[in-house]
Amino acid sequence: MLTPDLQRALGIELARYVSGRRAELVAVDDRLAALVDRLVAFTERGGKRLRPEFVWWGWRAGGGPGIDTSPAHAAVQLGAAVELIQACALLHDDLIDRSDTRRGAPSVHRAVAKQHSEEGLAGDPDQYGLSAALLLGDIALAWADDLFTQGAHGQDAVTRTLPVWQSMRAEVLAGQLLDLVTTVAVGTDPAAEAADAMIVNRYKTAAYTVERPLHLGAALADAPPVAIAALRAYGADVGVAFQLRDDLLGVYGDPAVTGKPAGDDLVEGKRTLLLATARARLSGDDLAELDSGVGSASADPSRLAQLIAATGAPEFVETRISELVDRGTAALDRADERGAPVLPELAVTRLRGLATLASRRER
Amino acid sequence: MLTPDLQRALGIELARYVSGRRAELVAVDDRLAALVDRLVAFTERGGKRLRPEFVWWGWRAGGGPGIDTSPAHAAVQLGAAVELIQACALLHDDLIDRSDTRRGAPSVHRAVAKQHSEEGLAGDPDQYGLSAALLLGDIALAWADDLFTQGAHGQDAVTRTLPVWQSMRAEVLAGQLLDLVTTVAVGTDPAAEAADAMIVNRYKTAAYTVERPLHLGAALADAPPVAIAALRAYGADVGVAFQLRDDLLGVYGDPAVTGKPAGDDLVEGKRTLLLATARARLSGDDLAELDSGVGSASADPSRLAQLIAATGAPEFVETRISELVDRGTAALDRADERGAPVLPELAVTRLRGLATLASRRER
Repeated sequence: MLTPDLQRALGIELARYVSGRRAELVAVDDRLAALVDRLVAFTERGGKRLRPEFVWWGWRAGGGPGIDTSPAHAAVQLGAAVELIQACALLHDDLIDRSDTRRGAPSVHRAVAKQHSEEGLAGDPDQYGLSAALLLGDIALAWADDLFTQGAHGQDAVTRTLPVWQSMRAEVLAGQLLDLVTTVAVGTDPAAEAADAMIVNRYKTAAYTVERPLHLGAALADAPPVAIAALRAYGADVGVAFQLRDDLLGVYGDPAVTGKPAGDDLVEGKRTLLLATARARLSGDDLAELDSGVGSASADPSRLAQLIAATGAPEFVETRISELVDRGTAALDRADERGAPVLPELAVTRLRGLATLASRRER
Repeated sequence: MLTPDLQRALGIELARYVSGRRAELVAVDDRLAALVDRLVAFTERGGKRLRPEFVWWGWRAGGGPGIDTSPAHAAVQLGAAVELIQACALLHDDLIDRSDTRRGAPSVHRAVAKQHSEEGLAGDPDQYGLSAALLLGDIALAWADDLFTQGAHGQDAVTRTLPVWQSMRAEVLAGQLLDLVTTVAVGTDPAAEAADAMIVNRYKTAAYTVERPLHLGAALADAPPVAIAALRAYGADVGVAFQLRDDLLGVYGDPAVTGKPAGDDLVEGKRTLLLATARARLSGDDLAELDSGVGSASADPSRLAQLIAATGAPEFVETRISELVDRGTAALDRADERGAPVLPELAVTRLRGLATLASRRER
């Protein structure tokens, strides 16, 4: 999805930074190389690179110059820094969710545990995998902060971007913690469950994936407050739409596209607006069957997906996605007090295009 | 150990900062309070506060003014920031080591799991405890960076302290990762095992607990390079001596003092210079008994401790501690090219006093 020149610049920056930090660790002891290289490979392979893309378009929307200019390097660095937070978030999330796969490959903790077994090392393979993924995630989080500091150099840029960076980190961690707390709650009625899912979506996904990355790029470019407000309004809505799309793909998506087994969200027992909506519309045996199946490794995900589909919950979520995308993209059209658009045409076009990714049923 | 005015200033700073960040998370959703309060309590209860103490004496040794002056606040903030890294390190270490206790109380993941069971929440209590402690550790690490940024304000202070802060974080994570890698290695001979333990001690403890905190305080005070070199030389040696003392206490210490069950290091299978020395001196049935007992929950730690004591390994480690403390404290006496001492008398006296903590058999 990234334009080829942004993709290239981001790849170069991540490779440069991560290889330098890898060398620092391997200089301590070269036996660290095998584990650190897993983090390096995970980071370089990457996923959809949505967050750096939004940092970039926040930068451009805020008036920052194009990729072939010298100031643009800082925007690429900030995008790469957010990718490193994402590496931490995914490694740690996979421990929390006990996920076997990630980005179409074994999750890091599983891959390390497998290697432990194959090499006949001492101790418990699973505990070793957990410990390694935990520490590699911590390393990625520390690297993220250090790279942010490189990108946001100069006192003015720090003053503008540091509060955004700190809020983004706090929001994603708050969202993850709230996800945890609401998932273990018992006796929550479906309406409260739907509301909880939407708060988690707001912090764990929307703020962290779209709103704050845009804000970060725009703050770096010293965009005017009205432009930042427009970008944040877009990000808050479109970000939730992205998560609702992911929720649908987590139940009905093609494993070849999602990189996760079919119905994986149901097996993991993930609380979503989709599930809460279906639960509110079911009763009796159907509700009991859904509730006993969700979060159970022995359940048949395709049967659960059918039960949910029969309630019309997927269509309800589709409608919410459309509403959010419409409202979010409308925010891009804000004008200043003189009636002039606050965002450059190029950026608006690109952000509209990115919003349609949430609307599309396949990606 | 901290002087009462430093203890008070540190307590106020930590409480101020952590309560502000707590409020930020609870504003997202007040159901986060119960978990976040565990991190708050863990941080405020604290341990020996060794790291802030060394940051402080690095500051004083580097010429920084006393606790009742306005510039001293930054040194207290940097000390508090290191305490937050320590909160992350302990929460995550306890997951890696599957420790039941910490600072004389249940470890955070165990306490959260217990609460989960008592309240009859959904899902697996242990997985919930693990997930909560993992995320709370991440939060502590993010807070640490944010508080460091507050303390090291002003472009000159940032330029001096940021590289030290980043190295410290990288070193402790490298030490933890190396600890993990060397613990699962099989067929390592005792000499290599002893060497491995000493590299882990250097990075996981000495750099992180003594050398870099001193360096951080001295850099903040804009100390001359010769003073920083003296402090780092002291820290590298005395820091390892601290770890060797902890290793002895982990086998022979009084649980009322250490806050851990007697012989806990043996049950956990921790690789130490003490153990490697004993293994090098044992053979036949005794070695087999030691090897089968270490890391086994069913072994009798007092029997293993006797086996180790019979080899004279504890005395060997005591000798190493004395040598390290002697060499480390000697570095404090360095003089500049005019023959004048490079460190103020007050700081040298205090650092000598702190080094004797490593020499003492009980603390």
